[in-house]
Amino acid sequence: MKIDVVISADYIMSDKLKDKTVVVIDMLRATSVIVTAFINGCKDVIAVTSIEEAKAIGESMDNDVILGGERNALKIEGFNCSNSPLEYTKDLIKDKTVIMTTSNGTRAIKGSTNASDILIGAMINAKAVAKELIKLNRDVIIVNAGTAGQFSMDDFICGGYITDCLCDTLGEDKVELSDIAYTALYLYRNNKDINEFLKSAKHYKRMIELGYNDDLVYCTKKDITDIVPRYNKDRIVI
Amino acid sequence: MKIDVVISADYIMSDKLKDKTVVVIDMLRATSVIVTAFINGCKDVIAVTSIEEAKAIGESMDNDVILGGERNALKIEGFNCSNSPLEYTKDLIKDKTVIMTTSNGTRAIKGSTNASDILIGAMINAKAVAKELIKLNRDVIIVNAGTAGQFSMDDFICGGYITDCLCDTLGEDKVELSDIAYTALYLYRNNKDINEFLKSAKHYKRMIELGYNDDLVYCTKKDITDIVPRYNKDRIVI
Repeated sequence: MKIDVVISADYIMSDKLKDKTVVVIDMLRATSVIVTAFINGCKDVIAVTSIEEAKAIGESMDNDVILGGERNALKIEGFNCSNSPLEYTKDLIKDKTVIMTTSNGTRAIKGSTNASDILIGAMINAKAVAKELIKLNRDVIIVNAGTAGQFSMDDFICGGYITDCLCDTLGEDKVELSDIAYTALYLYRNNKDINEFLKSAKHYKRMIELGYNDDLVYCTKKDITDIVPRYNKDRIVI
Repeated sequence: MKIDVVISADYIMSDKLKDKTVVVIDMLRATSVIVTAFINGCKDVIAVTSIEEAKAIGESMDNDVILGGERNALKIEGFNCSNSPLEYTKDLIKDKTVIMTTSNGTRAIKGSTNASDILIGAMINAKAVAKELIKLNRDVIIVNAGTAGQFSMDDFICGGYITDCLCDTLGEDKVELSDIAYTALYLYRNNKDINEFLKSAKHYKRMIELGYNDDLVYCTKKDITDIVPRYNKDRIVI
């Protein structure tokens, strides 16, 4: 199994995704939100790129809809939830459709539709993602959402952890890493407590400035669920 | 001073280079060749993207011309030199124009012409490059040539070493690193003997398979010269 990494939504080359399984990672915080929404029983998630589109879809549907997301890491006016996974509680979202728009994560998902499958990955479901990748048994491209189109250390090390899980289960000799996948793995293996490493990351620092410490504690936990959402016909489902 | 890194020639976004100093790195081996050619007294280097262009320019000029470069890491038929820096001896190239075409390095240089200055960097002149960057006093984009359009660990860690030299001289508080520049720096600082780290790199392994061990020993040496070639009006000069 070959593993490669795309460093941000701006660098997706659609042709290269053909016949591959893609894992989209935006661990701080869009993909952590999506996984959490499913943990708490949402029906499905619709990821859209613009605020207007989110509102329009919301208005066209019945009442069982939650609007969520962010711009500049802040809540969007008129939306039910921000981009904090802790807001997506069972009480609020059980059996509902979540319509999400975020700066980087939803763009990475929409940019990956040329792949055979698109899985939603984060630290909180990394091991389960690795298991699913093994089941699908295709070459893997980890698509990091990044931050503002740029490489983001948080997504990169999360991809390193998923790669580590793949190597552990399959054996190193069954996994062919590109140089960038090897580099992500190296970083994870040398920083298994990822919080220490992430203290130097721009996006992580911004989260701390905004007082999102509880989100950071939550999003950097490993493997709290076996749920692996996947993108299928314009919706994310499990 | 802000420092950012582009992971390969395929990912250069020309608009972002405006008003910046670019350092092009293809340490295995094109930029090591160029630096070495100047150490041994060449007059200038013309970097072109195609074999045909190299031959045509060679034929249009007088006799003091050396054709050099590679395709798939091998010598090009009819050329004087391959892409091994050890072939560019004083006897052969003193006062001559070297016309070079390589798979990645020359493409990275040609793709960077929107920058204010383009410096040619490698391990063998890294400290001198850092000094020159400080003199120019603009934000810096390290453009890695990469291998076949992809991220290459060798160029990445070389950029980490140049970043380390900048941090040492200016002080960490005077340098603003993007997440990817920080990651390159982290890798270098944890692998100051870069050969050990590079044993896992695809391009390094290919060099070993081809028997280019002497080139690897040479290209991974640090700071054997103060020469910093720069691209200026279609030629590389010092």
